[in-house]
Amino acid sequence: MYWIYILLVLNIELITSSVVITRHEEECVLDSKLVEEIKSYENVTKHIINEIINGGFGAAMYDEYTKFIDKFGARISGSEALERAIDHMVNLTVRNGLNDVTTEDVKVPHWVRVKESAEMVQPYYKNIALLGLGTSVSTPLEGITAEAIVISSFEELDKTDASKIKGKIVVFDAHYVTYGDTVVYRGHGATKASQKGAIASLIRSITPFSIYSPHTGDQTYGENITKIPTACITLEDADLLRRLQDQGEKLILTLKMTYTYDEKTSRNTIVDLKGKDNPEKMVIVSGHIDSWDVGEGAMDDGGGMIISWFAPVILNMLKLKPKRTIRAILWTSEEFGYIGAAAYLQKHLNQLPNINFIMESDEGTFKPLGLEVAGSPKALCIIKEVLKQFAPIDKLTKSDYPGSDIVLFIEKGVPGASLLNKNERYFWYHHSEADTMNVQNKDDVIECAAFWAAVSYVIADLTEDMPRA
Amino acid sequence: MYWIYILLVLNIELITSSVVITRHEEECVLDSKLVEEIKSYENVTKHIINEIINGGFGAAMYDEYTKFIDKFGARISGSEALERAIDHMVNLTVRNGLNDVTTEDVKVPHWVRVKESAEMVQPYYKNIALLGLGTSVSTPLEGITAEAIVISSFEELDKTDASKIKGKIVVFDAHYVTYGDTVVYRGHGATKASQKGAIASLIRSITPFSIYSPHTGDQTYGENITKIPTACITLEDADLLRRLQDQGEKLILTLKMTYTYDEKTSRNTIVDLKGKDNPEKMVIVSGHIDSWDVGEGAMDDGGGMIISWFAPVILNMLKLKPKRTIRAILWTSEEFGYIGAAAYLQKHLNQLPNINFIMESDEGTFKPLGLEVAGSPKALCIIKEVLKQFAPIDKLTKSDYPGSDIVLFIEKGVPGASLLNKNERYFWYHHSEADTMNVQNKDDVIECAAFWAAVSYVIADLTEDMPRA
Repeated sequence: MYWIYILLVLNIELITSSVVITRHEEECVLDSKLVEEIKSYENVTKHIINEIINGGFGAAMYDEYTKFIDKFGARISGSEALERAIDHMVNLTVRNGLNDVTTEDVKVPHWVRVKESAEMVQPYYKNIALLGLGTSVSTPLEGITAEAIVISSFEELDKTDASKIKGKIVVFDAHYVTYGDTVVYRGHGATKASQKGAIASLIRSITPFSIYSPHTGDQTYGENITKIPTACITLEDADLLRRLQDQGEKLILTLKMTYTYDEKTSRNTIVDLKGKDNPEKMVIVSGHIDSWDVGEGAMDDGGGMIISWFAPVILNMLKLKPKRTIRAILWTSEEFGYIGAAAYLQKHLNQLPNINFIMESDEGTFKPLGLEVAGSPKALCIIKEVLKQFAPIDKLTKSDYPGSDIVLFIEKGVPGASLLNKNERYFWYHHSEADTMNVQNKDDVIECAAFWAAVSYVIADLTEDMPRA
Repeated sequence: MYWIYILLVLNIELITSSVVITRHEEECVLDSKLVEEIKSYENVTKHIINEIINGGFGAAMYDEYTKFIDKFGARISGSEALERAIDHMVNLTVRNGLNDVTTEDVKVPHWVRVKESAEMVQPYYKNIALLGLGTSVSTPLEGITAEAIVISSFEELDKTDASKIKGKIVVFDAHYVTYGDTVVYRGHGATKASQKGAIASLIRSITPFSIYSPHTGDQTYGENITKIPTACITLEDADLLRRLQDQGEKLILTLKMTYTYDEKTSRNTIVDLKGKDNPEKMVIVSGHIDSWDVGEGAMDDGGGMIISWFAPVILNMLKLKPKRTIRAILWTSEEFGYIGAAAYLQKHLNQLPNINFIMESDEGTFKPLGLEVAGSPKALCIIKEVLKQFAPIDKLTKSDYPGSDIVLFIEKGVPGASLLNKNERYFWYHHSEADTMNVQNKDDVIECAAFWAAVSYVIADLTEDMPRA
């Protein structure tokens, strides 16, 4: 999940801006005919869920998911592993009886972590685990050895005289509040430090909990600055450096970081279950197929990618063709700033009015809880009515910016939703070596897949289009 | 904390063998005079606790603790860091007004992790995080490249034909049940695998939870076997290897592990607050000053070491001299099998009858809950009566083998106790890079210190000796 773009451009805190609407808080007055129509789907949604959970389809999907993750591992933007993974998903779609699968080329960033290390050499020797941040430049081959200064916030940096920063490595040790609050240090720490003359910046990883694990992620160099190497370190080492500085110790670090950065061609993958009445209209279900280059990208976003891919595939297997097209999109290069989604939007701009609803799962596939929805009040009421038949997976959270890639569409007025799930530990694993299959629970993922397929089916089949604002 | 010795020799599960005694479950009939005497300590225990928690003494101790951990970091048996740490504690004792501090030489193992790496090279390339186990031999300098076989249990190994093991790397992927249940794979996996012809063994780390963190620890080679290199890997990689094997993939790993192993002289540190009536009798409070060579040894056992050292020091500052001597012992080389404790026992065997009670904190200094006690029924009743005035820190758990080093004394009939605390996450960090100050909560550690000092004072000052079985 990549969140910097929207956070910085729109200055919105995604997580904290959500508002939970419970059944009793807001009155929805829907046409009784529409309510009846929604209720009439109860048998078919039960059927879909039952087939997936008890009919073996979900288990088979989970098996394919596991094999996919174990076969391709990490799939960073521009990598060969990502392209092989895309080929695999195209073939898997056809092998599962759905031939309407295409890919669309996208130019994507290709940043490669070649080698990196950090050491504290004064006041004593200590290895410092680190993960360079996407698009970071390299140090000289012989590395950088320099004094470090620990700074807690941009406000503190602003107040610090530039002479105290110049030529130093700035270590930002801001503690995790919410991801939205704290990720600005990862996203802009290098730029801010460089503006004051720093020669590198290290960031306390953006996570509330650590077992000595560094977390990577994207960052953006501002314009007209000297690009300096930048990486995240563990909470443990950031806090150690802070304590040593507070004890009056002079900190000297050696950083050796080598990366390459060019451009490659990747692909968005589009899987259609064509609608029987209005094939030109569509409900999009999506996740991103790229990941960071550490761990296996099982959680971010292997789980979201597979359940979205599965929705049209299983509905086709169950011979359930909704009125509108259900289009699964496996976005490429989400982690470098919604690159695949932006390219799709650009290419299909004229089809925007035909996107009835757009969904994405990119915040985990833990125990499903409901949907985080953006749209007109009436659209929210319809979704709320639909969710009733999925109880206890019936929670509706309102958000202006649910999901990651799909916010580009939601900004253009398309209503949409992200999968709400019990993801309290999401950021413990996010963008780290721990994003592996160990994070996942088979039953939960299958339940997510069942909910995702059934709910997208109902929305795609309703007589009424999802009303826009 | 080192637990293999007692687990293997006595085949006891430490954690699961404890029995909680609540106030109502067992009837304790103590002499009313003794009960009155115990009650009479209420003011002094309140005073001790208040001075430590609210009088600044605990905060000053925590400050010294933090500086100690940050200054010396990991302190493995035989290392210079450990010896400097011991010197520091001797000086700190004198600086804090207690001159009765001595050290006693002990020959200890000195095993050094020089360099280690593991890679999966088939079915695809993947770096495998690992931590070699204490006393592991090295691979040849060019490493070992060999097929791996994943085995779930010793029973499965026994049933597997030796031809399937010979020349291979055995990966034990036993899942964590309790530490006691599962640590046998770390302790004896190499020996068992070697007996079947394996050339190295890797063990799934002994922890219930992982953020891609390998955990080290001790292991013991059996007699008359070929010593093979052995290490722990993360839960994530162990489970990946298992899945790949189950999918029919051939696994080939490359291991490069270099260690040195010799003997050094270290020291037990003994701090006495001499008893005013019976200085020859003593209550021992203890923790170990050595740690593993990863993390900072803040939890295991920096916290237990510091609160035990603090007990005679603070009582001396508060001018509270109990009838018997309170002796703090900072054991050396606990992690390689209670080496310091065994040497002390050997040297002071004739003083065994004079050890009234022996205490150790080596299972964390999280929120204190009470004591885990071994002793005669009457001794347990006395401790239960003493604990009443510490409510809510009044839980008493009965165990035949509380603590680590002190079990050597308890086996000889000395009654003793270990600090019960809210340590559910202890094994998440244990023997890993995550054993740092981040694990600790200042208020909790100070509360442990206050409880530890006050309870040891009461026991050391009671008229009656702690009755033995």
